[in-house]
Amino acid sequence: MAVDIQKRNHVQVTGNGEQTIMFAHGFGSSQQAWKQVVQAFEEDYKVVLFDYVGSGNSAKHAYSSDRYQSLEGYAEDVIEVCDDLNLKNIIFVGHSVSGMIGTIAAGKRPELFRQIMMIAASPRYLNDEGYHGGFDEESISGMLDMMEKNFNEWARYLAPVASKNEDRPELAENFEQQLLSNDQLIAREFAKATFLVDMRADLKHVETPIVIMQPSDDTIVPHEAALYLVKEFPDSEFVVLKATGHNPHISHPEEVTKYIRKYIAVEAL
Amino acid sequence: MAVDIQKRNHVQVTGNGEQTIMFAHGFGSSQQAWKQVVQAFEEDYKVVLFDYVGSGNSAKHAYSSDRYQSLEGYAEDVIEVCDDLNLKNIIFVGHSVSGMIGTIAAGKRPELFRQIMMIAASPRYLNDEGYHGGFDEESISGMLDMMEKNFNEWARYLAPVASKNEDRPELAENFEQQLLSNDQLIAREFAKATFLVDMRADLKHVETPIVIMQPSDDTIVPHEAALYLVKEFPDSEFVVLKATGHNPHISHPEEVTKYIRKYIAVEAL
Repeated sequence: MAVDIQKRNHVQVTGNGEQTIMFAHGFGSSQQAWKQVVQAFEEDYKVVLFDYVGSGNSAKHAYSSDRYQSLEGYAEDVIEVCDDLNLKNIIFVGHSVSGMIGTIAAGKRPELFRQIMMIAASPRYLNDEGYHGGFDEESISGMLDMMEKNFNEWARYLAPVASKNEDRPELAENFEQQLLSNDQLIAREFAKATFLVDMRADLKHVETPIVIMQPSDDTIVPHEAALYLVKEFPDSEFVVLKATGHNPHISHPEEVTKYIRKYIAVEAL
Repeated sequence: MAVDIQKRNHVQVTGNGEQTIMFAHGFGSSQQAWKQVVQAFEEDYKVVLFDYVGSGNSAKHAYSSDRYQSLEGYAEDVIEVCDDLNLKNIIFVGHSVSGMIGTIAAGKRPELFRQIMMIAASPRYLNDEGYHGGFDEESISGMLDMMEKNFNEWARYLAPVASKNEDRPELAENFEQQLLSNDQLIAREFAKATFLVDMRADLKHVETPIVIMQPSDDTIVPHEAALYLVKEFPDSEFVVLKATGHNPHISHPEEVTKYIRKYIAVEAL
């Protein structure tokens, strides 16, 4: 029996236009995160939203620890959604880890991607010699431990860090609920695939045009790590968003919308 | 006898268009630095180039240590050139210290400025508590000493640092010649006015729309100092140039041209 990809990934297609924009959520999140951004594009573009297997309203029974042990499995989701909808030359907008997931997918199937926009993305979260990723091995293994032993405590810790904007406490509260809505095992394996990735050596081979959008005060990705992207991707542009925290598409959707419009591949307009 | 501003500041007006773009050079430099950038704008804009008094082909006898002891004097040059040409609502593109000179001028006479674009600008070069400007007091006073005692050595030291791009040694050679073409006393006073400025507290009061263009590997302005600008200027945007060194308008003119076009105030098109 063929897999129903659209059901598996809870694919939603809206909007009017020849050019497709696909919005891909980050770790711990779901397509709901894009709700304040997508409507601005539905008039002129076909908009594709989806949940990675294991996240949001995806078919959780389709999850396998083997396939999703690394970001390759998530990149396969992106490719399969594109193929199922018969999409090519899409504009892929990925938040956080979806920047690297889109990069992997574009490496395997370049014809699917016209452009990749990545928001608050990092090629590697772990520090390394001469590289500041923002996390050391201890803090990552401590986080993975906490996710196993006390999932609630982990969500209560991470949500305000990622959300920042302390004057709008509902952002952290909502993100905490979002994190808690995840399956504990799946979330932990996704965290591991995310926080242990190292894409630094791959960036220079990517031919897809890249736009990097980095919050001025990202609390997860240090500026230095984001700058690594623009230095290594051969065809790339870098804009700083006037936004604090790691979720600007939720906290500052008008800023994200503005720069998607401004940087969208001109030939697609 | 009225001062001939156009002669004093060696003002050059070219191009066709209603909207004026004024290009302002940085410390140690002259309007010549813009030669690879301006021609792209002459078809659609009126282009104004000038040299600050004491720099380039300005009337050096008009220099006074009193007027130019701080950046205010240089801001007066900008205002006087605008008034002499009867300009209003200009787009001001300033390299390095001209970012702050334009900001001072806009504070005094906001109606003259539609938009300020600043390339490799910094609100303060000196380090301070919780602020990384890139220089400590010792290195600044050492540089000012060297400018007094051995001007040639100073130029030989600074040119390759600012120019970077070691694979194109002509950039450092040309910039060294440019630095050496300056009057030693004037250059030292301009260096002092530049490197001891602190505009941090003023930025939040600026109403002019600002575009900050920062080289990905600026060798003079640390990224953190440039980011300070976008966090403080109320109406500001920040783009990272794929460019190494402090003189991207000389080393990567196509990149600078591209982003001036992309960010130019839409209502001015």
